[in-house]
Amino acid sequence: MTSAAYDDSNIFAKILRGEIPSHRIYEDEHTVAFMDVMPQAPGHVLVVPKAPSRNIFDADPTVLAQAIPVVQKIAKAVKEAFDADGVLVCQFNEPAAGQSVFHLHFHVIPRHEGVTLKPHSGKMENGDVLAAHAEKIKGELGN
Amino acid sequence: MTSAAYDDSNIFAKILRGEIPSHRIYEDEHTVAFMDVMPQAPGHVLVVPKAPSRNIFDADPTVLAQAIPVVQKIAKAVKEAFDADGVLVCQFNEPAAGQSVFHLHFHVIPRHEGVTLKPHSGKMENGDVLAAHAEKIKGELGN
Repeated sequence: MTSAAYDDSNIFAKILRGEIPSHRIYEDEHTVAFMDVMPQAPGHVLVVPKAPSRNIFDADPTVLAQAIPVVQKIAKAVKEAFDADGVLVCQFNEPAAGQSVFHLHFHVIPRHEGVTLKPHSGKMENGDVLAAHAEKIKGELGN
Repeated sequence: MTSAAYDDSNIFAKILRGEIPSHRIYEDEHTVAFMDVMPQAPGHVLVVPKAPSRNIFDADPTVLAQAIPVVQKIAKAVKEAFDADGVLVCQFNEPAAGQSVFHLHFHVIPRHEGVTLKPHSGKMENGDVLAAHAEKIKGELGN
């Protein structure tokens, strides 16, 4: 593999260390989920393993297996919270595939019929809006 | 949840039962991987759990945990086989999110810098091309 090594100065590593804030909706021993600050649709959540890896190429398969049931929990919760018609799950590996933060993560994005997604690196969403969306999803998770 | 029930007349169920052919590149106890016949890029593979579920909403979390390490294996293999700059992993739930076959599956798509993806339901690829691509990927998997 030719991928670069993991660099723990990435923004998700800082969020995991609590050095910068996030709108967190879920946490367990292995995985955290928080709101994407540049959502492609309302309710866009990131599921992020705590273990360091750049992306799927250097991840421990066990870490992936721990993360994907959380992706499922979040997918179900955002579908209910936003009355979505569907949910898109995406995972980008390297810039050519759309990766912009180099810590493994899954995007979980509610979809509605006839509503196109906003660009991946669009406008930063208002913090109060993200906080309200986080509360809606947490309500569905039973937190 | 309001999703429709699983219908075992879908095309992936038929492939899993061997009723219609596929360019299969990987199989284990729980999971199969074969070439997408309408690839969004050369080397586009589908990773499909054998267990029946419509999508992530009704899947057994254990099935997801068994499938995602296979997604990883395939992602690494297609990156090498197609000398890709990155790999996109996508999983669509319900038509609003792009799902067109209603058996849970993951898309694994090699990406190259500056090359845009073809539409999701584009042209059917030539069988000889798919067979050749399958062989390239199987070579990287060490099958």
